[in-house]
Amino acid sequence: MTLSNIVANAPAALAVRLMACPSVTPATGAVFDALEAILTPLGFEVDRFIAGEAPDGPVENMIALRRNGDGPHFAFAGHLDVVPPGDGWASDAFAPEVRGDLLYGRGAVDMKGSIASFVAALEETRDLPGTVSLLITGDEEGAAVHGTRAIIERMKERGIAPDLCLVGEPTSVHRLGDMVKIGRRGSVNMWISVDGTQGHVAYPHLADNPIPRLVRILSAIEAIRLDEGNDWFQPSNIEITDISVGNEATNVIPAQARARISIRFNDMHTGAELEQRLRALVESEGGRLEAKISGESFLTPPGALSALVSGAIEQVTGLTPELSTTGGTSDARFLSALCPVVEFGLCNATMHKLDEAVALADLDRLKEIYALILRRTLAA
Amino acid sequence: MTLSNIVANAPAALAVRLMACPSVTPATGAVFDALEAILTPLGFEVDRFIAGEAPDGPVENMIALRRNGDGPHFAFAGHLDVVPPGDGWASDAFAPEVRGDLLYGRGAVDMKGSIASFVAALEETRDLPGTVSLLITGDEEGAAVHGTRAIIERMKERGIAPDLCLVGEPTSVHRLGDMVKIGRRGSVNMWISVDGTQGHVAYPHLADNPIPRLVRILSAIEAIRLDEGNDWFQPSNIEITDISVGNEATNVIPAQARARISIRFNDMHTGAELEQRLRALVESEGGRLEAKISGESFLTPPGALSALVSGAIEQVTGLTPELSTTGGTSDARFLSALCPVVEFGLCNATMHKLDEAVALADLDRLKEIYALILRRTLAA
Ligand SMILES: [Zn+2]
Ligand SMILES: [Zn+2]
Repeated sequence: MTLSNIVANAPAALAVRLMACPSVTPATGAVFDALEAILTPLGFEVDRFIAGEAPDGPVENMIALRRNGDGPHFAFAGHLDVVPPGDGWASDAFAPEVRGDLLYGRGAVDMKGSIASFVAALEETRDLPGTVSLLITGDEEGAAVHGTRAIIERMKERGIAPDLCLVGEPTSVHRLGDMVKIGRRGSVNMWISVDGTQGHVAYPHLADNPIPRLVRILSAIEAIRLDEGNDWFQPSNIEITDISVGNEATNVIPAQARARISIRFNDMHTGAELEQRLRALVESEGGRLEAKISGESFLTPPGALSALVSGAIEQVTGLTPELSTTGGTSDARFLSALCPVVEFGLCNATMHKLDEAVALADLDRLKEIYALILRRTLAA
Repeated sequence: MTLSNIVANAPAALAVRLMACPSVTPATGAVFDALEAILTPLGFEVDRFIAGEAPDGPVENMIALRRNGDGPHFAFAGHLDVVPPGDGWASDAFAPEVRGDLLYGRGAVDMKGSIASFVAALEETRDLPGTVSLLITGDEEGAAVHGTRAIIERMKERGIAPDLCLVGEPTSVHRLGDMVKIGRRGSVNMWISVDGTQGHVAYPHLADNPIPRLVRILSAIEAIRLDEGNDWFQPSNIEITDISVGNEATNVIPAQARARISIRFNDMHTGAELEQRLRALVESEGGRLEAKISGESFLTPPGALSALVSGAIEQVTGLTPELSTTGGTSDARFLSALCPVVEFGLCNATMHKLDEAVALADLDRLKEIYALILRRTLAA
């Protein structure tokens, strides 16, 4: 198979059109033009808008909507931006190329390929009743401040409220369909600093070494077991990721000591509660704490939506997907405020790596799965 | 009083001759020439020699000896090198200047002034029986690898063995004579490193964070009480002086963590024993330890020598000196292998500082004290 053999409306052809537009985060312009040109003939109203200002903006986003009378509203969410390709590709990262059974190019699995599969599925579901939307941001891989959050804001203003949402991130691990994400852990980073008084090691009574207090703080943090996990989440985890004092002189007692921690937490905690708890611990030793919450956890407890997605996967692939909450954060954490959300997409083995590639067969099967999900939702 | 009023053989005049020779550590040449020119007319045989090679050498040293038949051998030890003057002096650091009652210049108290007072005292003790020596190095403030240690080596080769040794370091604190050092703590620095396996904070089971092990090591170190001190020494002390991980990325578990500690220890310990003890602790957590022993502790228990020095101080100043083991290390730690050693000299308030200065009256009284000590030793 070569590029010229691919049928024009096959998911691979659509993927190639999107992957041929360089769109290192934040994505703007051409790649959105390409998607708009595909969606308009399919009956979608396309709303493109710019959100935010420097340093985390401006960011281009799209809400594409197709209404077909009454019926449920099914939303597909994703992003057109990609991480930088890096040096060392076998072919140009933005000149998609078929070699063997694989289509190579940045964004192949994360996630222009799954957008293409979803769009291809829309062809087959044109006449079903209800509403289908695509919520597409140009900034998921970057600061993500004015991406999906801005889309949600704009949907509220416009009175758009989906009933179900599928995020097309590459959740499959070894084989297409082996994993669906029904939740994600939250994430918070904290910076700890302890001040003392500089002095000479021969006269410790004239100094106040901040390191012993920092060590007590870190020992207490290491002793914390936040929880034992639950049915759907692994235990929350605290990692100490850095300590710095910056004292070159062997005979000097330093004036300051710092550390940084990173917590990935499940739905038994909130970022604010963890910040408060750690701050109390740090302040009990006279230290200071600053926290930055990257995202709260979310969970869509197994139910109708996950059963729908799993059923479609089983029918097409024969696999029963694991319902997982592992891994990093994703934009699903924002969307979960609107409606039940699950994530399902291509295999993630090559995401963010050199020679990112997708199996052509996976694009077709993912289209089948997405089409089944659409049919079962909209026909219901 | 101005420089021109100072009597030629007064300690102040001799101090000016030495202080006028720039001798930032390591001292060589001119300042040794100046001292030799003063000592030769006083009947001293002067043995100057160069020891060591780069990076810690070469270093110039001097053994000056005056034998007067049988009798005890009294050694005076000191250094002609000085620490760099730094910027901001009111007058040229190497152009000694009298302002008011003070003589200003680098080395005024540490320790060209006390060498001058000792030499002046030699004038008055020419005819006493026994041996007097000056053991003068050009490298006490620097690496000190080829200074006093090389002098001791050479004395052994030449069969020179003093019975008593006085080191002229500036031990006085508020008033000349308020403190004599009869010992010093030892000093050792240790570098601890713990290796792990780098990874992503979202997948801690695939990484091995070295920080928790380092924190356990440092907690255990903080819990150590080496001793409670004894009659002559304050408790030995461990300070953690640095911790470094060097991980900038908030979502990365680092591969290595390091710390540095500094121990000042009394005569209840040796450097080797402490190194062994800490190494066992560090290795129990899979870490590595490197140690550098700067010096062992020494103590000349109060006895004949300290009584002699204290008695002379009391007679001249009316003060009863405190017999102390506080502060940093000094070359007395090497000399204590030869014979009883105590340290006594000028006030240390301005040592190593801008506008280092000595009271002219202190130079004269120190000469009186040194002369009394010489008379009581050699006449005994
Ligand atoms: Zn993605
Ligand atoms: Zn000195």
